[in-house]
Amino acid sequence: MENTKKWAGEKAAEYVENGMVVGLGTGSTVRFFVERLGERASEEGLAFTGVTTSFATQKLAESLGLAIADISEIDKIDLTVDGADEIDPQLNGIKGGGGALLMEKIVATHSVKNVWIAGEDKLSARLGTLFKLPVEVVKYGSENLFRAFVADGFQPAWRLTDSTNADIGAVVSADKRLTTDQGHFIIDLHFEYGISDTDSLAQKLSQTVGIVEHGLFLGICNEVIVGKADGTVEILTRK
Amino acid sequence: MENTKKWAGEKAAEYVENGMVVGLGTGSTVRFFVERLGERASEEGLAFTGVTTSFATQKLAESLGLAIADISEIDKIDLTVDGADEIDPQLNGIKGGGGALLMEKIVATHSVKNVWIAGEDKLSARLGTLFKLPVEVVKYGSENLFRAFVADGFQPAWRLTDSTNADIGAVVSADKRLTTDQGHFIIDLHFEYGISDTDSLAQKLSQTVGIVEHGLFLGICNEVIVGKADGTVEILTRK
Repeated sequence: MENTKKWAGEKAAEYVENGMVVGLGTGSTVRFFVERLGERASEEGLAFTGVTTSFATQKLAESLGLAIADISEIDKIDLTVDGADEIDPQLNGIKGGGGALLMEKIVATHSVKNVWIAGEDKLSARLGTLFKLPVEVVKYGSENLFRAFVADGFQPAWRLTDSTNADIGAVVSADKRLTTDQGHFIIDLHFEYGISDTDSLAQKLSQTVGIVEHGLFLGICNEVIVGKADGTVEILTRK
Repeated sequence: MENTKKWAGEKAAEYVENGMVVGLGTGSTVRFFVERLGERASEEGLAFTGVTTSFATQKLAESLGLAIADISEIDKIDLTVDGADEIDPQLNGIKGGGGALLMEKIVATHSVKNVWIAGEDKLSARLGTLFKLPVEVVKYGSENLFRAFVADGFQPAWRLTDSTNADIGAVVSADKRLTTDQGHFIIDLHFEYGISDTDSLAQKLSQTVGIVEHGLFLGICNEVIVGKADGTVEILTRK
């Protein structure tokens, strides 16, 4: 599994060209991508500008000596490479397992091309069957929102400071909940049989007061690089 | 003008009954409402539980000795009284001039009845003609969003730390921008001839990545208490 991530991440590093502005995702698969970029920078003198999607990735990039720009200075990102927690055949996905979905979606929104990298275990016939759906919520009123999710049958669970989940429906004190880089909480929603209509769920969540962003990334990804157990990579392209 | 606010605010204070959970809005008109509640508490022993929509209102309520609960402890708010910056004939409105639109909308969402109090100068045939539309945005990527608003013709202006606006379209350094109680920035959008379709604008803004909440309060208000220059108040009720 670790190897499939590595193959996908290193393949994506081939896409980066001199002078590009490159969005750097977050997570364990992206780490292989960023580390390979660090190697290319020192081996070939590859020069590009990175835009990060989390404080963790920023630290990693800086430790490798990569040039990082603040997103505010950037008009357009040429290419963003990020992981995904679950990817369906239409290249829609669920992201947010690393707790960075908001910054990731902001960077993706300003990117001309979005490439996801993942091991083949992330491919799914129906979103929600492999992974919980994270929503990033304003702290104020978040308990009320949580109770509303329970009533809606969304089986919510608080994301905890150690990045695990509390039990579904369990009350958790505020100091035990993960605070995101932008100062919000994350609640993970559990859809036992998957999400039947991703578009309408995304719209409902976007319009719910107190939700800053949700982990459904629909129509965003252009290409997926899948690392396979047999050592090959497969490229999936949005139709 | 000050008097019309006072008459509306004091009228609303008559709506509060013993044992109620009451949402306390934010702003200069609400101040009259909360102060009158303070008087009723000491004169008649009126006892209710307040839920606040800003740190400013919380301070005011505490200074008057009113009982305040954290919204997380509350399942249902019986009545919320808040101001509005502009109100149309359908009792839809623009709120957020005081910088508290996010917390105000969260409280309103959990309220059984929402009453707005305003001087008659806030009544408008078409939203956007009297007042700019505030949007509360995530700090990360907010400059990119600002530039997108410029491109969309929304004539954005940063809300500044002294609660005034920068010039339309003007670049403003982050330290000069107001940070809301929930840790975001506010950008005010200027619709020179008013907003032609509030529903579709609200939907577009809700779905824009990086926007936490917008100041269009549609279908939320049940009743408006209008303070008039002749010393009377007029009650408008949602049809």
